[in-house]
Amino acid sequence: MQLKPPYLMFLGDAADQLAAKTAQGVVDWRPDICLAQLRLPGCNADLGLPDMTLEDAAARGAKTLILGVANRGGKISAEWAGVLVRAMELGFDIASGLHNKLADVAGVLEAATTHSRQLFDVRHPTQSFAVASGSRRPGKRILPVGTDCSVGKMYTALALTKEMQGRGMKASFRATGQTGIFIAGEGVSVDAVVADFISGATEFLCPANEVDHWDVVEGQGSLFHASFAGVSLGLIHGAQPDALVLCHEPTRTHMRGLPDFPIPDLGLCIEANLNAARLTNPAVTCIGVAVNTKSLSEAEAGAVLEKIEAELGLPTVDPVRTGVARLVDALP
Amino acid sequence: MQLKPPYLMFLGDAADQLAAKTAQGVVDWRPDICLAQLRLPGCNADLGLPDMTLEDAAARGAKTLILGVANRGGKISAEWAGVLVRAMELGFDIASGLHNKLADVAGVLEAATTHSRQLFDVRHPTQSFAVASGSRRPGKRILPVGTDCSVGKMYTALALTKEMQGRGMKASFRATGQTGIFIAGEGVSVDAVVADFISGATEFLCPANEVDHWDVVEGQGSLFHASFAGVSLGLIHGAQPDALVLCHEPTRTHMRGLPDFPIPDLGLCIEANLNAARLTNPAVTCIGVAVNTKSLSEAEAGAVLEKIEAELGLPTVDPVRTGVARLVDALP
Repeated sequence: MQLKPPYLMFLGDAADQLAAKTAQGVVDWRPDICLAQLRLPGCNADLGLPDMTLEDAAARGAKTLILGVANRGGKISAEWAGVLVRAMELGFDIASGLHNKLADVAGVLEAATTHSRQLFDVRHPTQSFAVASGSRRPGKRILPVGTDCSVGKMYTALALTKEMQGRGMKASFRATGQTGIFIAGEGVSVDAVVADFISGATEFLCPANEVDHWDVVEGQGSLFHASFAGVSLGLIHGAQPDALVLCHEPTRTHMRGLPDFPIPDLGLCIEANLNAARLTNPAVTCIGVAVNTKSLSEAEAGAVLEKIEAELGLPTVDPVRTGVARLVDALP
Repeated sequence: MQLKPPYLMFLGDAADQLAAKTAQGVVDWRPDICLAQLRLPGCNADLGLPDMTLEDAAARGAKTLILGVANRGGKISAEWAGVLVRAMELGFDIASGLHNKLADVAGVLEAATTHSRQLFDVRHPTQSFAVASGSRRPGKRILPVGTDCSVGKMYTALALTKEMQGRGMKASFRATGQTGIFIAGEGVSVDAVVADFISGATEFLCPANEVDHWDVVEGQGSLFHASFAGVSLGLIHGAQPDALVLCHEPTRTHMRGLPDFPIPDLGLCIEANLNAARLTNPAVTCIGVAVNTKSLSEAEAGAVLEKIEAELGLPTVDPVRTGVARLVDALP
């Protein structure tokens, strides 16, 4: 899978800005490849990009139409079929992050075949993976892990990659979820592969590399999330990380979607992740903590960062407020 | 999925007895539902069942043709299509444990449709599962966990179920792999579900039950197996076990298929599994150890069991040599 830039961001009739969260993430991190947005009547989201028709965007060189929107029901609307078919006539490939498959929308597969266009359902890995070998491979890897789901692991991975590349280090972001895949143009939705191949898909995603090259692997889930911890563990074993970063959201009162489950203690969470990671890389260390303090005031945020740093004795940052330079300084 | 007994066991042209290992497991545990075997020219395996033609077996009431054989290449042979189609004409459903799908063999899907027969690919779950809720549910559950893959977890689960049922306890075996599914007539191949749903599929498999009912859940993989630990962890979280049994094979020198990975220390392995299981059931305990001493002499086996029992302070049995009564005695 390799998405061709530049992108035309399709927002459909997104009910609000939150429904366009995936598309917004792509624009935030890759403004260089987001040429324009296409909105249908009733759309209440705005990415701050120029509005363009399919024809205009095609004329200006857009190559892929990105469906990075949470439609009502999480699915590609049958009403969008006309737009998708017309896009393919004009030369676009289509990439979707929604739950149903592009080929299952009437007329879409036929148009893709007729016009030799590619359809990318980034939530649905189509390739086969080998079972993980567990063998040590050259190259270094960082993996953000979480106290919970949706605490800023992707943002942290992207910020680390940017900081490292800015210092002239060899670093690549490796995407494991839909937003990350749109941003990187490639990757594997590891939570959507067959369970036996979680670690194998991760080994494929961040293969052997130069000894001074860092893969920054997007984390998924949490070892303490009762629904998804299997994905997190397989990802840890496949990544063979040299360095972990613990990601945390300090205002959360329970695990996401699981009201009965408390957020784990940060120190225990680091220990559990290190214990798991040591199976495939005995030298792994935790280099620091990345806290998402978006819902706190500046003063509150500062206090939280100080408290965690004092308790754990590890560099503690907010990737947005403070940047991640201190984490990169701490790399082994 | 619910396989209808009795079964006609199809051995094809199995090269040797090992190739019929799955079928043999079904016969060992469910002689009551294995009516006969069907062997093709060149077959070198024998389950000790009467040989019957499709016609004879149908006349005697066989309802399902079981493909529990490891063919050369692990696939359903195109040469078997004629047998499969004829079986469906005679009223059989077909259940396969091979890697490719029955419907992909030429003529098979058409015959199933024409004759209204069911095709069961037990390695390929077709239903959708919910994401695990993690909510505590009534009923009790035992889960065998392993130091490695293929150390006797299914055998232990079946032996526990039999012992408990023999004592008049309410107990059900819950199958998570192909052989177990043939034996139980139902189940879910949890290593073949989409990664996000490992725990959810397990919650579906062993749902809420009477407070004095035990589900004995077939374990999979090992938390210490670098290829498959994600499956093991998701299964542990979904099962919410009250009791774990550690399964072990004492002659193994490294993890199965992974020459660089040593077998974990038994005490550490129990601790890691208990720590993982406590997330969804804080009251979980390890009730004992089941050792597969098949490749040891009687004297060696006795010494191994004694040594482990002394070291860990837990009832240690070989389900074949000693039975599992002491494990059932130790249930909470």
